[in-house]
Amino acid sequence: MKGIVLFGHGARNAEWVEPFHRIRAAILARVPEVPVEMGFLELMRPTFAEAVDGLVARGVTEIVVVPVFMAAGSHVKKDLPLMAAEIMERHPQLEIAIAAAVGESPQVIDAMATYILGAAG
Amino acid sequence: MKGIVLFGHGARNAEWVEPFHRIRAAILARVPEVPVEMGFLELMRPTFAEAVDGLVARGVTEIVVVPVFMAAGSHVKKDLPLMAAEIMERHPQLEIAIAAAVGESPQVIDAMATYILGAAG
Repeated sequence: MKGIVLFGHGARNAEWVEPFHRIRAAILARVPEVPVEMGFLELMRPTFAEAVDGLVARGVTEIVVVPVFMAAGSHVKKDLPLMAAEIMERHPQLEIAIAAAVGESPQVIDAMATYILGAAG
Repeated sequence: MKGIVLFGHGARNAEWVEPFHRIRAAILARVPEVPVEMGFLELMRPTFAEAVDGLVARGVTEIVVVPVFMAAGSHVKKDLPLMAAEIMERHPQLEIAIAAAVGESPQVIDAMATYILGAAG
């Protein structure tokens, strides 16, 4: 079974996580059966490892991690692959693939441009 | 004249800024005459203050700042309003309005969900 982890940075204020809940809800509205969890680098739970462990416990054997970041900095390019490698050592049957950051998607960029122009009136 | 500042976090690796260039290009493709600049909190130039000063030098008197962040953490809720207030003291004729973070836009959330489902195959 395939699952999705939405990898986020995490922040101190609790409302910061709201857009992540909305993204997850938008995914589940379209594909209710897909196992999809948020996993954070720091300051918020579940951690990335906890999210993966939770999916594995639900029978997931293949995970696509999508960095919910504007762009790929060191958290996405270095921290995330290291964490994924460590987790795959603990779960030898598990495959983890890392997608490009959401901010690199042309459709997301287009939607951001539309929003920005609307906000600028 | 009204201008736009795309407020980003900044990062150590130079390629991180690519999506910001693409967002700016997408805006200019639609509205070539709008003054739009990127301004970063840290690690990258121009800084937020430099971006604003550049727009003011071009005759902009009204700026909408759009945080190119997934969600509003302390950088957006605390650092940005403080910087904007300091800059408005230096430029008494300038009005700065701060929009919601791009990641809070329903259309952006929808585009992210679409991208994530595509990436998960």
